[in-house]
Amino acid sequence: MNTNSPNRIQVSAPATVANLVCGFDVLGMALNEPTDIMEIAFNDLGILRISHTDGYDLPTDPEKNVAGAALLALMAELEGKTGFDLSITKNIKPGSGLGSSAASSAGAVAAANMLLGNRFSKYDLIRFAMNGEKVASGVKHADNITPCLLGGVTLIRAIHPLDIVQLDAPPLFVTVVHPQIEVRTSDARQILRKEVQLKSAIKQWGNIAGLVAGFLKHDYDLIGRSLEDVIIEPVRSILIPGFNIVKSRCLEAGALGGGISGSGPSIFMLNKEESTARDVETIMKDVYSSLGIDFKTYVTTLNREGVQLIKSE
Amino acid sequence: MNTNSPNRIQVSAPATVANLVCGFDVLGMALNEPTDIMEIAFNDLGILRISHTDGYDLPTDPEKNVAGAALLALMAELEGKTGFDLSITKNIKPGSGLGSSAASSAGAVAAANMLLGNRFSKYDLIRFAMNGEKVASGVKHADNITPCLLGGVTLIRAIHPLDIVQLDAPPLFVTVVHPQIEVRTSDARQILRKEVQLKSAIKQWGNIAGLVAGFLKHDYDLIGRSLEDVIIEPVRSILIPGFNIVKSRCLEAGALGGGISGSGPSIFMLNKEESTARDVETIMKDVYSSLGIDFKTYVTTLNREGVQLIKSE
Repeated sequence: MNTNSPNRIQVSAPATVANLVCGFDVLGMALNEPTDIMEIAFNDLGILRISHTDGYDLPTDPEKNVAGAALLALMAELEGKTGFDLSITKNIKPGSGLGSSAASSAGAVAAANMLLGNRFSKYDLIRFAMNGEKVASGVKHADNITPCLLGGVTLIRAIHPLDIVQLDAPPLFVTVVHPQIEVRTSDARQILRKEVQLKSAIKQWGNIAGLVAGFLKHDYDLIGRSLEDVIIEPVRSILIPGFNIVKSRCLEAGALGGGISGSGPSIFMLNKEESTARDVETIMKDVYSSLGIDFKTYVTTLNREGVQLIKSE
Repeated sequence: MNTNSPNRIQVSAPATVANLVCGFDVLGMALNEPTDIMEIAFNDLGILRISHTDGYDLPTDPEKNVAGAALLALMAELEGKTGFDLSITKNIKPGSGLGSSAASSAGAVAAANMLLGNRFSKYDLIRFAMNGEKVASGVKHADNITPCLLGGVTLIRAIHPLDIVQLDAPPLFVTVVHPQIEVRTSDARQILRKEVQLKSAIKQWGNIAGLVAGFLKHDYDLIGRSLEDVIIEPVRSILIPGFNIVKSRCLEAGALGGGISGSGPSIFMLNKEESTARDVETIMKDVYSSLGIDFKTYVTTLNREGVQLIKSE
């Protein structure tokens, strides 16, 4: 144990939007709201203990807890017997499609790494955190973890070996609605066809190429035109009541574009101006109120920092 | 007829590499060599007359000639009876995979537009030139025409409606080998499967996103890592003897990456340094000499101008 390091660390771990419409499994973006709050401290028992201060009744057995699985992967690479006490306050609702499990796993390993004097690289942390995603959805995906840890917009160019690219992006206002219905990531994966038309794939890679160019060139119109998904959205949006009307009305109101956040049910819209983001929120509230579905909305911005230290003792 | 405009224009129209490995049907790049030379002048007959000064025995009937089809599309949007005499010297061999037909159609309409005092936009010219591609391969694709007209690296984000994005790119040396075998664009299209695995499509859009980011960030390593094609190359490369050995030896020699140019049979390699580009050329010569297949090689650079005026009278 490094005596120069602190004994207790508190961090915030941001919500993330995976896929970004045309970048299924490869693109992701961090948001400034909502965030999970996590506190980690050393213990002398050499084991991992997890507690929750939220009301989500998540498992606290480290192997069944997503943050636990991520931390156990980190602990397996530590020499000696280091124990941690982890306390989690989830504000990102599990199953929202806003990277709740990624925030837990990424936040936990990032906080532990701060306690350990940053002995692991960001790549190591992504690798550890992927074990949490495996517990959450059965798949070791990294498209939420990476933006959660690094901030901004990130590209997973390849997963074996892991190749991460951070993409510059212009200022963006993001409006999110989380209709309080359940869409499991595993169900959302199962309804996808295993084969796609080559001509649809070509449209999709034209769009992702346009979206990446739009971010890097700070070209809002190009970002907007590229936010089109001809493969995943037509299938998955069926699981989300109100999706089509929300999307079309938000575009009419001036949103650049948007779609399903991760595997849903949350819907996100990117906007150039804050006023448009607020108009978009009004539309989202209006649609889900009239559908009689409970919902929560956020108007936030692109988070460029990723997991952030709140306090260190 | 605009009396302030010249009466005779000579232009060069560059060879182009379509697809750029992972950007099938959407990416393209212009080269400084080889180029076709075209001369256009008004005639008083109100008709289009085409002649060739090269030895390729291409049709001179305007409707069957790719440059002719492109020019006829342009002429259909002119008021009055304007006639042109077009003389073509092809240096880009038809069927090489280096955008020979695109150079004919793009060069012809760009030259005519210069004669006409630039009354048409670049978008109009792309639209006209696509009629030439239709004659050449049965498909109105734009992935060679666009870089030929605009220069540099170009993205066709969408074809209906046409959405073109010019991508900045760092200096690049390009080595090309054209093994003198015949691969028809239409055959090369027919052997492709109409459906692809979703997991392969995901790899492909990770790579095209990486390649676009690599170009815009001037990140040579990222460009190299992203030049991977898991969908088209495994099928089409079978039509090109020596492909695998050329590719693996060029990568060993330090090429960033490369693959089939357009639908082949030419193979291109991108390089950061001219010396590597020369080493790569030696390898290409060596492979095709030992296979007993005639070939032609080029060591050239990224062309940033597109069709260029040589002289105006």
